[in-house]
Amino acid sequence: MQTSADYTRLSLNQITTNRWSLAEALEGCLRAQVPAIGIWRHKIAEVGLTESRRLVRNAGLHVSSVCRGGMFPAATAAERALRIEDNRRALDEAAELGADTLVLVCGPPPDRDIAAARRMVEDAIGALIPYARERRVTMAIEPLHPMYAAERSCITSLEEANILAEKFDPDTVGIVVDVYHVWWDAMLERELERARGRIRGFHACDWLVPTPDMLMGRGMMGDGCIDIHRIRSLVDGTGYTGRIEVEILNQRIWDQPGNEVLERMKERYLSCVLSRDFYQSAPT
Amino acid sequence: MQTSADYTRLSLNQITTNRWSLAEALEGCLRAQVPAIGIWRHKIAEVGLTESRRLVRNAGLHVSSVCRGGMFPAATAAERALRIEDNRRALDEAAELGADTLVLVCGPPPDRDIAAARRMVEDAIGALIPYARERRVTMAIEPLHPMYAAERSCITSLEEANILAEKFDPDTVGIVVDVYHVWWDAMLERELERARGRIRGFHACDWLVPTPDMLMGRGMMGDGCIDIHRIRSLVDGTGYTGRIEVEILNQRIWDQPGNEVLERMKERYLSCVLSRDFYQSAPT
Repeated sequence: MQTSADYTRLSLNQITTNRWSLAEALEGCLRAQVPAIGIWRHKIAEVGLTESRRLVRNAGLHVSSVCRGGMFPAATAAERALRIEDNRRALDEAAELGADTLVLVCGPPPDRDIAAARRMVEDAIGALIPYARERRVTMAIEPLHPMYAAERSCITSLEEANILAEKFDPDTVGIVVDVYHVWWDAMLERELERARGRIRGFHACDWLVPTPDMLMGRGMMGDGCIDIHRIRSLVDGTGYTGRIEVEILNQRIWDQPGNEVLERMKERYLSCVLSRDFYQSAPT
Repeated sequence: MQTSADYTRLSLNQITTNRWSLAEALEGCLRAQVPAIGIWRHKIAEVGLTESRRLVRNAGLHVSSVCRGGMFPAATAAERALRIEDNRRALDEAAELGADTLVLVCGPPPDRDIAAARRMVEDAIGALIPYARERRVTMAIEPLHPMYAAERSCITSLEEANILAEKFDPDTVGIVVDVYHVWWDAMLERELERARGRIRGFHACDWLVPTPDMLMGRGMMGDGCIDIHRIRSLVDGTGYTGRIEVEILNQRIWDQPGNEVLERMKERYLSCVLSRDFYQSAPT
């Protein structure tokens, strides 16, 4: 079966080609006719926000997200205030680049009290609401895989992210769904339906078996065990029509030439995300 | 603060001292005055079931669990039938040893359809019910950490385990709570309360930061980030009065002399599981 090559929703999350600078990633997307990009703050910092904006405008690419805000919990009130202030800068960057969202990786607990860390996250998001509204940027909470609970995010499931997001106005606080972080969840259908109207981003990659590394072990779509097509269909079933970002943290992929990675990404986007063609030809 | 040294609920899950044979583990428990043991099937197989029973009876130790049954999903009906038959043997072993429970590690999906794998688990448990009743053994579903979803268990959260267990009679199908597998869960209190009357085992260890290995990276209580005392209090709050097994998969601990591991385990059992003394002296 041939799938029509429709890349209108595809976005390169630039961590997938981490060796590329922002300028190189934009050029790579233009060359491969990938119409959108998710931009990381450390790449913005390399050239500055003004130059980043100029590069993005010249390229004419859509910015599907800025990665990442968050990292809210901290042991002292002073440190938490600094984190919130840093998130205001992230909101400035997202606004300047015309990004759909600022992705929030909410941060790990500073001690054994994960419930307290969760309250710090809620308080910080609440504190950022007026600033986000002024800049018309949606903050999108990304629940991370529970294996990152101690080091990256105390927000570990879609249910938890829903409960948190529902405390705020959906134009200001949404949710990002990444298949890598949620594929294991038996409550996925229920919680995606609950997130209807709040989903502000969708990320694709795959879970490799065995997993070579907890952080850097993500795979290209189709190379792992996630039924990405099914999750994409469920997400779209909630009315989501936004971009589909490919975000892969994997040194082996980073070591490949970026142009080749983008071609593979486009193939698998068609055959594992938009359709199921690849699964029929390549069982796990 | 001095905690009274009450070890009546303590049990050594023998994987914690994996270099020891069953006989050595029983001797180690007697020497350390640990009154119960969780026994693994590969250790039973080393000496046979008859000799295992003799050793256990001579030692006079209580057997808190046999580890492990499960591993139900498979690609073919014939293979699934073999898995069920193997679980009948595991139930025989648990019955012969007078174990409180047979722990079920339910198994990974054979392909990308995790929902189908979950149905295979439910079907297999259903098929085993009459046999388990005859032998008066409770099968205890252990939800595993979601990072094991692709390789060890498609049952990944306490909510999911509750939904599954509730389909069966609580005398035949219960739940094992292991802090390592559930500590990250924002719904932990709700789901422990829901499991009231079904909790048939409680396992303790710790989540090291950073985690040295996905499988073999568990830590001694107190050496990681889990508030074990809190989870133990919640479990006991549901009316659980059973054993507390210490189950640690970690090559560094396996390489230490077993007697030293048991002494450390007893100390930390008092100071991190029964009380919070250790946390007050040693922040994360």
